Amino acid sequence: MTTTDYGIRTVLELPFAEAVERTKEALKAEGFGVLSEIDLQAKLREKLGVELAPYLILGACNPPLAYKALQAEPEVGLLLPCNVIVYGTTGGRTVVAAVDPDAMLAVVGDSAAIAEVGRDAKLRLQRAIAALQGTSVERPG
Amino acid sequence: MTTTDYGIRTVLELPFAEAVERTKEALKAEGFGVLSEIDLQAKLREKLGVELAPYLILGACNPPLAYKALQAEPEVGLLLPCNVIVYGTTGGRTVVAAVDPDAMLAVVGDSAAIAEVGRDAKLRLQRAIAALQGTSVERPG
Repeated sequence: MTTTDYGIRTVLELPFAEAVERTKEALKAEGFGVLSEIDLQAKLREKLGVELAPYLILGACNPPLAYKALQAEPEVGLLLPCNVIVYGTTGGRTVVAAVDPDAMLAVVGDSAAIAEVGRDAKLRLQRAIAALQGTSVERPG
Repeated sequence: MTTTDYGIRTVLELPFAEAVERTKEALKAEGFGVLSEIDLQAKLREKLGVELAPYLILGACNPPLAYKALQAEPEVGLLLPCNVIVYGTTGGRTVVAAVDPDAMLAVVGDSAAIAEVGRDAKLRLQRAIAALQGTSVERPG
């Protein structure tokens, strides 16, 4: 698992469709439902006639965290849900990456409640991505 | 129209449902399709039993811009589509706000292509929000 400035990422030795199913299960285990699902490959084929590898954008939302963030900042919906992308890459492998909610929510300002939601959501997404690899991230404290 | 660190925002003297329709038309006029639509009020009522004002998260995507960004950075899907929120507020008014794609895409790094997409998308969203108010933002150049 690697963490960039804006994402938490892993590469799975799994075909695309199986990686999608495993990703949804891993998200569910951390309390995230999938509120939106965009098939970018199909959409860009339809609109532009171009051919991408399979590419799905899942909108993952943990309802209690989303509600907490909204109570602190009504416009936090601009940054919800948390995107998790799944796309096919070379050699039959599949990339799974989640946005870093801590980095995203930091742009909202210095609300303590928002910062707490960002840290909690990040930890949950890190655990979900780690679970996909069969490893685990330790819980703090 | 006001621009914060992460959004472009206006308040309309329109009921929620009409504001949603007008927002979709304004986005379409700037080349954005709506790829996802999350009814946050319904979702949080269902999951938590809490009651929000009407609150919709629209996922707006301009396919040529999205494709250009993807070619420069495959993981830019983490930041797509551009969120546009519409929510009811006091006095029968409705808030419409779009994420600032320029600010969001800045986290991806210093790719010139990504920066160009961010500026273009921002200008289009600013024009869409301005059109809702019956005003216009001048095109540069």
